[in-house]
Amino acid sequence: MDTQTKFVFDTLWLLLSGILVMWMAAGFAMLEAGLTQAKNTVTILCKNISLYAVACLMYWLIGYNIMYGEGGAFMAFGLALSGFEDGDHSMMSDFFFQVVFVATAASIVSGAVAERMRFWAFMLFTVILTAVVYPIQGHWSWGGSALGGVLDGFTDFAGSTIVHSVGGWAALAGVLMVGPRLGKYLESGGIRPIPGANLPMATLGTFILWVGWFGFNGGSQLALGSMDDAIAVGKVIVNTNMAACAGAVVALMLTQVIYKKVDLSMVLNGALSGLVGITAGPDYPSVGIAIFIGAIAGGLVVFAVPLFDRLKLDDPVGALSVHLVNGIWGTLAVGIFNPEVSLWAQVKGIVIIGAFTFAVSLAVWAAIRYTIGLRVTEQEEREGIDLHEFGMEAYPAFQPQ
Amino acid sequence: MDTQTKFVFDTLWLLLSGILVMWMAAGFAMLEAGLTQAKNTVTILCKNISLYAVACLMYWLIGYNIMYGEGGAFMAFGLALSGFEDGDHSMMSDFFFQVVFVATAASIVSGAVAERMRFWAFMLFTVILTAVVYPIQGHWSWGGSALGGVLDGFTDFAGSTIVHSVGGWAALAGVLMVGPRLGKYLESGGIRPIPGANLPMATLGTFILWVGWFGFNGGSQLALGSMDDAIAVGKVIVNTNMAACAGAVVALMLTQVIYKKVDLSMVLNGALSGLVGITAGPDYPSVGIAIFIGAIAGGLVVFAVPLFDRLKLDDPVGALSVHLVNGIWGTLAVGIFNPEVSLWAQVKGIVIIGAFTFAVSLAVWAAIRYTIGLRVTEQEEREGIDLHEFGMEAYPAFQPQ
Amino acid sequence: MDTQTKFVFDTLWLLLSGILVMWMAAGFAMLEAGLTQAKNTVTILCKNISLYAVACLMYWLIGYNIMYGEGGAFMAFGLALSGFEDGDHSMMSDFFFQVVFVATAASIVSGAVAERMRFWAFMLFTVILTAVVYPIQGHWSWGGSALGGVLDGFTDFAGSTIVHSVGGWAALAGVLMVGPRLGKYLESGGIRPIPGANLPMATLGTFILWVGWFGFNGGSQLALGSMDDAIAVGKVIVNTNMAACAGAVVALMLTQVIYKKVDLSMVLNGALSGLVGITAGPDYPSVGIAIFIGAIAGGLVVFAVPLFDRLKLDDPVGALSVHLVNGIWGTLAVGIFNPEVSLWAQVKGIVIIGAFTFAVSLAVWAAIRYTIGLRVTEQEEREGIDLHEFGMEAYPAFQPQ
Repeated sequence: MDTQTKFVFDTLWLLLSGILVMWMAAGFAMLEAGLTQAKNTVTILCKNISLYAVACLMYWLIGYNIMYGEGGAFMAFGLALSGFEDGDHSMMSDFFFQVVFVATAASIVSGAVAERMRFWAFMLFTVILTAVVYPIQGHWSWGGSALGGVLDGFTDFAGSTIVHSVGGWAALAGVLMVGPRLGKYLESGGIRPIPGANLPMATLGTFILWVGWFGFNGGSQLALGSMDDAIAVGKVIVNTNMAACAGAVVALMLTQVIYKKVDLSMVLNGALSGLVGITAGPDYPSVGIAIFIGAIAGGLVVFAVPLFDRLKLDDPVGALSVHLVNGIWGTLAVGIFNPEVSLWAQVKGIVIIGAFTFAVSLAVWAAIRYTIGLRVTEQEEREGIDLHEFGMEAYPAFQPQ
Repeated sequence: MDTQTKFVFDTLWLLLSGILVMWMAAGFAMLEAGLTQAKNTVTILCKNISLYAVACLMYWLIGYNIMYGEGGAFMAFGLALSGFEDGDHSMMSDFFFQVVFVATAASIVSGAVAERMRFWAFMLFTVILTAVVYPIQGHWSWGGSALGGVLDGFTDFAGSTIVHSVGGWAALAGVLMVGPRLGKYLESGGIRPIPGANLPMATLGTFILWVGWFGFNGGSQLALGSMDDAIAVGKVIVNTNMAACAGAVVALMLTQVIYKKVDLSMVLNGALSGLVGITAGPDYPSVGIAIFIGAIAGGLVVFAVPLFDRLKLDDPVGALSVHLVNGIWGTLAVGIFNPEVSLWAQVKGIVIIGAFTFAVSLAVWAAIRYTIGLRVTEQEEREGIDLHEFGMEAYPAFQPQ
Repeated sequence: MDTQTKFVFDTLWLLLSGILVMWMAAGFAMLEAGLTQAKNTVTILCKNISLYAVACLMYWLIGYNIMYGEGGAFMAFGLALSGFEDGDHSMMSDFFFQVVFVATAASIVSGAVAERMRFWAFMLFTVILTAVVYPIQGHWSWGGSALGGVLDGFTDFAGSTIVHSVGGWAALAGVLMVGPRLGKYLESGGIRPIPGANLPMATLGTFILWVGWFGFNGGSQLALGSMDDAIAVGKVIVNTNMAACAGAVVALMLTQVIYKKVDLSMVLNGALSGLVGITAGPDYPSVGIAIFIGAIAGGLVVFAVPLFDRLKLDDPVGALSVHLVNGIWGTLAVGIFNPEVSLWAQVKGIVIIGAFTFAVSLAVWAAIRYTIGLRVTEQEEREGIDLHEFGMEAYPAFQPQ
């Protein structure tokens, strides 16, 4: 195969994968709109489409340069895409594939802080997350320039840590700063379930994310134009699919055994957990190992969701359980099952990237809280954010109970 | 074009097509959730995502080996993917493209038996269908090892019979064993229409299936890496699209003429019927013939739906009319319009595969019925399966009538 | 790269792009069903799937020959695809990519005239639009045979004018002939907002359109099989994405500033406006210019929607503001920012294509109005078209207010 053919294959693969990952933004929108209450649906929809737009603009303006530019992490503002050139694939296809990943990290946050955070407070956090926070840790890891080599050996194929846990840590900081929804945790110690308004929408969102993940993980091979690359991409896609299947089936069976009823939202989160879990390393294991990693992920989510509730960390859509917990699990799994990767390197990566993201996020959330304010008023929360910040209803033709 | 380039093209095409076919699982979920009642929506959603997961796991564990393994149909358990190698395309891309087809067959069943079957009974049937039943008949046909050559000459490009009718026969056996929904067929002889709860969802599902079908049929060329293959794939995709258009338009006009009103769900099923009808042979005919085949399919579904109702075969989503009737029609059409294919070979294939699938399915459904039980209780059916087997509502914020 | 490899790349790219554009039909269906009232939802869904089917059939039968056939614009009936041959890519892939564009133009019309037009009147217009009107102006522009060379120099990469404004002009003529919905414009001079029934659906539709637009614009490069083409496609996709982001963000901020509340439907239309705006020229500008073009588009839609209302041009989904206004803006923008294109050529193209499409459409709408009739009765409009023309409800399980 000549250079030109390889160039076209690699560019095509990044563009197609990027399109699939962009489509995940729709998946998050549907998942989160389905798992939250009807009175806050316009808000969550608007957050999801707006965060995608803002993430792309900020990453173009600053983030991409911080993450991959030659100047390094601290000299990027206003450079946009200057200084980048076509290499083994087109520069624009590279940017496109990277920019949709940033939006994924921001999408994770929006679900966890839903139903009580002010729209513009969230958008402001998104600006900072996508312009600076995500790119800095990405510069250390995928950008290949860890501070003093401390992340040498850390292996995260498509971003269990670098995307999913980062979103999860940012979300955890947000959940801590904004507090739980009114009435979620009763004074009696009880926990009130707040059902999602539209489970077909949530199921659709899960399927969209699943489809998009083939691009998320498959594209992370970053090349297609050789037999070896094509074989690798095929393996990545099969492992990704099978881990998701295993996560769904384990969550399905565990909820039946534990609760004597199947829990659909847990099955959805089980599939997503399998996907997050395999994301750090869909390239090395056999299908059997991939299934095992997904199965553990599906089990973890079933236990993590009530655990976060017991800790009074209110996460309406289960984003912490799916993306933070299983982002960590998936990254550790590479250290356990891939003989070429050291578990210690994985632990270091998880801790350093997690500590950085959590600390900076906490500071940013705090700054927003004590300036423009993080949380809607009690009345706004009771009546729905849609009414107050948007003056619109998501389903005006139907009578919400 | 060198071997390596061809390998990459063929592998890429199978992976992309497989992703499109996987997406069809979302289409079936939306279609079936849209065409059934709100009180059973969680069940139908959970069935659809779970059957996809189970189908993938079972086909990996047993089915792929039965269908394509060298050991043949009866020595496969536990072999997973051992013994397969990369050939003209990557082995994993081949497995991926095949595994998503199995899920399609299982999806067809779930709609037909909706609203009265127990969730776990359906899942158990899915295990057996995807691990054994589908792979055995697939071994005879696509696997190339028919019993004594009896299927020689039988031609089914992408599976009008091998996937769609097989799903249809399994569904028909299920419909017979589980019986109609309460109140569907009145003692007076009347038939009560039970409208679907969410027609936008059903329409979305149809569009998803239509898009996915470009991979279903286009990918069945199994190669892209030559001018001839690329030209063939283009033809397959155009014929697939045009047959669906014809099916939709004929159903549209026929319902207007017969009922003096347009029936949207019939238009949706008309498009799907056109797709099923062209699936056995989108590769050989002119566009005009493809349109004709789709048009007949769109007519057949308009007459088949009330016919099944007169036979008291209760099929909430019209799966028998779409997949069984038009799977047969599409397979016959190849014998009629393709001069290289014998109509007799087509009839033999339809009968042999149909008889096998129907008989084994009937036995499996019967075994489930007389052990763990097939059908929910009368109270559960009246109040909705969601409440009893899941303890969840699909649309908790809205007051169902 | 050898000829065969290039042929496969180009064919593959047209097929994949065509699949993405076909998917836009689902996007229009969801967007329009989400932004209109529940009582007309079945109608709008049926219009959207039926118009796609009719557009494909009519363009195959007549339109493609008019637009690209050697016989020119007036000798095509019944020729179907005869006379076309495989060239740099497969003829069928070319037809597929072109046919899905026609459906897009027709989709634009359906939203603007929703909620008061008779179903069959709209379908009849669709037949004529897709068989004759769209192909004739397409023959002048993309078909390369303008009357006496009057369109020489007119540049419209993927169809801001040729697809989107054409749909917009046809819609404007329809809006004028059918009149506003009852109760939209009060005698007091007030304007009654009529909220859409399902904003998650509308948001999903926007995401679908956004994804599909990567094929719409990316595929319009018409080739992928060289480094230059691959680089160009990457640039087109990034510019398309960034213009949409800018349109969404500007609409987001403007509605907050002007109305003190965010308007989700305006954010959705802002993103779509950015997409329409960049469509005439995503290939030449820097990302910064693409963002600027999208930003202006996002601003234009915020002012155009109330302007059309002041003119009593009732457009339930904002199609005129998105597709007509920004189709014009995008076409002008090429003349402004691309030094190789004359602004005068752009103006001429906008005027000639617009005048032709508007005049012919007006005549066709008038002919329909004075024969079979354009508008449903007052009672039908009040009670909903679904009840009268379909006898179905979109959401029968829920109590519409």
